Amino acid sequence: MVTTEYQPLTPETLPDRLAEIPDIARQLGGEAHQWHCREVGDGNLNLVFIVEGATKTLIVKQALPYVRLVGESWPLPLKRSYFEYHALCRQQQRDPGRVPEVIHFDEPQALIAMEFFSPHVILRQSLINGARHQDLALHIGRFMARTLFRGSDLCLPAKERKADLQLFAGNVELCDITESLVFTEPYFDADQNRHTTPQLDSLVASLRADETLKLQVQHLKMDFCTRAETMLHGDLHTGSVMVHEDNARVIDPEFALYGPMGFDIGMYLSNLWMAACSQIGHANRPGERDEHRNWILDVANDTWTVFIQEFSRLWDTERLGILYPETVVGNRASASELALNHRLKTIWRDALGFAGVEMHRRILGLAHNAEFEDISDPDLRAQCESHALTLGRDLILGRAGFSNVDAVSRRFHQRLPAA
Amino acid sequence: MVTTEYQPLTPETLPDRLAEIPDIARQLGGEAHQWHCREVGDGNLNLVFIVEGATKTLIVKQALPYVRLVGESWPLPLKRSYFEYHALCRQQQRDPGRVPEVIHFDEPQALIAMEFFSPHVILRQSLINGARHQDLALHIGRFMARTLFRGSDLCLPAKERKADLQLFAGNVELCDITESLVFTEPYFDADQNRHTTPQLDSLVASLRADETLKLQVQHLKMDFCTRAETMLHGDLHTGSVMVHEDNARVIDPEFALYGPMGFDIGMYLSNLWMAACSQIGHANRPGERDEHRNWILDVANDTWTVFIQEFSRLWDTERLGILYPETVVGNRASASELALNHRLKTIWRDALGFAGVEMHRRILGLAHNAEFEDISDPDLRAQCESHALTLGRDLILGRAGFSNVDAVSRRFHQRLPAA
Repeated sequence: MVTTEYQPLTPETLPDRLAEIPDIARQLGGEAHQWHCREVGDGNLNLVFIVEGATKTLIVKQALPYVRLVGESWPLPLKRSYFEYHALCRQQQRDPGRVPEVIHFDEPQALIAMEFFSPHVILRQSLINGARHQDLALHIGRFMARTLFRGSDLCLPAKERKADLQLFAGNVELCDITESLVFTEPYFDADQNRHTTPQLDSLVASLRADETLKLQVQHLKMDFCTRAETMLHGDLHTGSVMVHEDNARVIDPEFALYGPMGFDIGMYLSNLWMAACSQIGHANRPGERDEHRNWILDVANDTWTVFIQEFSRLWDTERLGILYPETVVGNRASASELALNHRLKTIWRDALGFAGVEMHRRILGLAHNAEFEDISDPDLRAQCESHALTLGRDLILGRAGFSNVDAVSRRFHQRLPAA
Repeated sequence: MVTTEYQPLTPETLPDRLAEIPDIARQLGGEAHQWHCREVGDGNLNLVFIVEGATKTLIVKQALPYVRLVGESWPLPLKRSYFEYHALCRQQQRDPGRVPEVIHFDEPQALIAMEFFSPHVILRQSLINGARHQDLALHIGRFMARTLFRGSDLCLPAKERKADLQLFAGNVELCDITESLVFTEPYFDADQNRHTTPQLDSLVASLRADETLKLQVQHLKMDFCTRAETMLHGDLHTGSVMVHEDNARVIDPEFALYGPMGFDIGMYLSNLWMAACSQIGHANRPGERDEHRNWILDVANDTWTVFIQEFSRLWDTERLGILYPETVVGNRASASELALNHRLKTIWRDALGFAGVEMHRRILGLAHNAEFEDISDPDLRAQCESHALTLGRDLILGRAGFSNVDAVSRRFHQRLPAA
């Protein structure tokens, strides 16, 4: 860009601006006046353009200086695109091909031009539509294992890990969104909260009166704020995954931070479980979505299984960091095995706690999920939502007691509302 | 300083250099040629000068570009004085008067001119000498509560806490010393290790063969590396405390980092317990030091009690950060009380684990303690050291089971070698 002063772009102004960037012009091909731009941002924060050139189509994502969902009354720094750019670079390195390739990053314009995944759709919508994606668990389970392991002191040189900790500790305002909207506001009567009313009123009141629950959530919040274990995606829900047939890709890591490994896993599994909870709301006749719901539960199960396999493989082959060094715990001897199992158990317990919190905030807080919102009958929607709310409470309070995903699936079925 | 190129100073060159700094010259008073300088650094890392002027005496501490204890073969960045300066400023703010006042900081020269505590002596030496200091527990217990609470997300605005996290995450090389020398090398046959031999050989071999122990230590190391709860002193042992009569002061925070609250507490209590273990080695006749030993154990007890009191007071009056907000857990209602107790229990359990590790590394690793080293009879020294080693193992493995300091004192007495 010639100008360095930030200017939000429009489909009309974008082509001429992009034409000034040789890398982008070359990839798009042809002349700028032939490029077709449309704004497709349906997320909560940014402008997102699809730019179709003569030879290639690209995504151009530009941060706005405020929260798009709320408006200019909630300012949000442009610097989030800087964190997204750095997170994308690290994810690309740690799990090549799973995130969009960055073509160009313009820091003053808070703009990232990147690979367009086509004809991919957002996983959340695909799950609502009842579609299946065979390698979903494989792709996301491996992505989580690789990015979480390779960004930590288990693998990175300590100096590099500390430099990245410094870098991402600057992502203050986006962390604040998680700290407030996920861990705090849902648990009291905050202004921005909303829920399906009056159907959920009494359940919501009982959750907000449950001191044991609220205490556990605050312990989880402290874990989120202080346990800087690895670079997290930070917002890894089904709206941050794109799918086409058997292929899954991960987008939108602007919430990236150093935090506990279980957070990404918990948030992602939670969104699968909520998708499963919502299925009866999308059935045209009783039982129509039961099989799809069970498939989603299986995906959750398989994702965790893949995670364990890949994390264990990396533990054996790439444990080059300062933690659990071979000089002390050996390699795959009993001590190393015990250490690995201890870490996996901790990650799992944390993940379940974070999963429960994510369920609550998506139903009680500011940002809601389409799989529930799209259910037009409020009674039916409330039924699905209360299934998720109670499951969430069970996960938070009982997180040390669920030995695996099957145990969660069993609880899911026990809590299933009568048809 | 006129020159900005780093130059290590000597008692001969120091006065002329200090005369160039108005703040210092004014405090010292008189003419530079009248100032008396001597180098007194008996620590492991730096040059330390006492500069006596006409009206006042100051300490001038200058970092060397290597580890003094080892020599030029072990380079260490000068930047550690930058971290010490920033830590001193924060400690001064969080517990006024407990650390030396900084008169002048010269970053290129890695030099801090600061208040001289006189006629204070190092606590470690005072405990060897058999002296008592009435308010020791009060001063250090409060110092720990105030600095640990006020540097955390319990109190600081989140943005400020993250900025400090960034700042201190740059203290890579000094963290590396702790990561390596405290948590790793003592547990295998590392080159720099030494211990009283042959008396301790079999005990040392059994500790290094104990996979359960080594695993727990690696879990503690992961806690140290990842749990960025607050700004720690980072090296709070009895050599970092100065005492005179009833007054105690804290010095040398160059190891400052964001880490788990229990680390400072554990390291400090551990050094008191080691001082207690060493007392029979300093007795001229059997039983001569029993009373002093029990006094030291009482100080450990009282320090933790003071810590709890002060931390609880701050919890009620200064919990202004994002953790455990009043909107969710109330204030001093049952949920807040439960939250506080949970945090204190976690800090205590962590502290005992870190205390055990500190005992091991001071007897098996590179840096040893004067209270053991000064015992000239190797059999007697080994007896004291094995008392500490076994107590350390008990603390690491049983850290969840000691309900308070009394329980540790009981274990101390059970493990006491026969006179």
